Amino acid sequence: MNIGIIGSGRMGSGLGKIWSKRHRIYFSYSRDYAKLKALAHSCLDAQAATPAEAVAASEVVLLSAPWTTVADALREAGPMDGKVLIDCTNPLLPDLSGLSLGLTTSAAEEIAGMAPGAKVVKAFNTAFAEIYHGESRLFGSRRLTMFYCGDDHQAKATVVRLILETGLDPIDAGPLAAARYLEPLAMLMIQLGYGMDMGSNIGISLIHR
Amino acid sequence: MNIGIIGSGRMGSGLGKIWSKRHRIYFSYSRDYAKLKALAHSCLDAQAATPAEAVAASEVVLLSAPWTTVADALREAGPMDGKVLIDCTNPLLPDLSGLSLGLTTSAAEEIAGMAPGAKVVKAFNTAFAEIYHGESRLFGSRRLTMFYCGDDHQAKATVVRLILETGLDPIDAGPLAAARYLEPLAMLMIQLGYGMDMGSNIGISLIHR
Repeated sequence: MNIGIIGSGRMGSGLGKIWSKRHRIYFSYSRDYAKLKALAHSCLDAQAATPAEAVAASEVVLLSAPWTTVADALREAGPMDGKVLIDCTNPLLPDLSGLSLGLTTSAAEEIAGMAPGAKVVKAFNTAFAEIYHGESRLFGSRRLTMFYCGDDHQAKATVVRLILETGLDPIDAGPLAAARYLEPLAMLMIQLGYGMDMGSNIGISLIHR
Repeated sequence: MNIGIIGSGRMGSGLGKIWSKRHRIYFSYSRDYAKLKALAHSCLDAQAATPAEAVAASEVVLLSAPWTTVADALREAGPMDGKVLIDCTNPLLPDLSGLSLGLTTSAAEEIAGMAPGAKVVKAFNTAFAEIYHGESRLFGSRRLTMFYCGDDHQAKATVVRLILETGLDPIDAGPLAAARYLEPLAMLMIQLGYGMDMGSNIGISLIHR
């Protein structure tokens, strides 16, 4: 295939390099055209291009520009009719402190408002209840990750103890407002389990290397 | 510890049972008090209670009522001052089709609006770009999961091929609107990697059993 890359930063260059082993890559949308050319030279089968050239030459387009430049990048790219457009953007705020759209609040924050004085910790919301009714929480030899977040350190320490006693692997996701990410993660699990018929014997494991 | 459970359905009963091996559990907030009593009898150290009793007796409270009943449950529970309140609720719509608050749109859907005719597929947005620049995508012997979503089946098949060629494990998250869950998942990874200083050699693996 021919694959056009719009936005050739860390993400676009990394994926383009890997894909150039099997496909022809058109790197585009960098402030520095010489950099695009150097990048293309470092790949098996790639060339530098303008976004319009990259799109015109390709049946698949990767949109890997920063969210704030997406409208501009798409304008430069021109018509996309019939193209497969892979969107790997995230609408991050410039300081990476959150998403600039889609998220406004969370159940956890609403609950903190309804329960004044309580030290609210979000936890146990991203695994199916069925998992607590089985003999074991293990998936083969692997533990599920249980993310938690909250604004009170002592309360969080208590919850860590409960997560461990439940047979899960606790991971601190930060302040209570991080529930804005944990609640959609639960919704993703529900979408996979029920919407996509994967069932409830699935779970999230955060892996490291 | 004494742990009060507000909402003793699948989630509350499962966790309460596990925790009753080490703690005293107060099960509350069921339409059927006899069911609470039977549940408590099946546990090592537990009793049925009203929400107010459960909270008064406990230093830790698990809020595991359905989101639509949370306001009522907290009213019945009374003052929470100084309690550790574990919130495991998710603000689900009654038909489980989405979240009732917090989510309004996604970058993917905005991009589909900006690129008419394109077959937009959300993918490659939940792993750190650094992972594409290393020698291998493997985490030990494990592959990262790459969720993708979109409304065009053929476009998704193309993206699956690219995900596999990239050395990742593709999981279909459904229609493009599921980007509302995939983008917050990326934000969770950024929060863990940078906000919580875990670095970028972390990733998500969906596990099955």
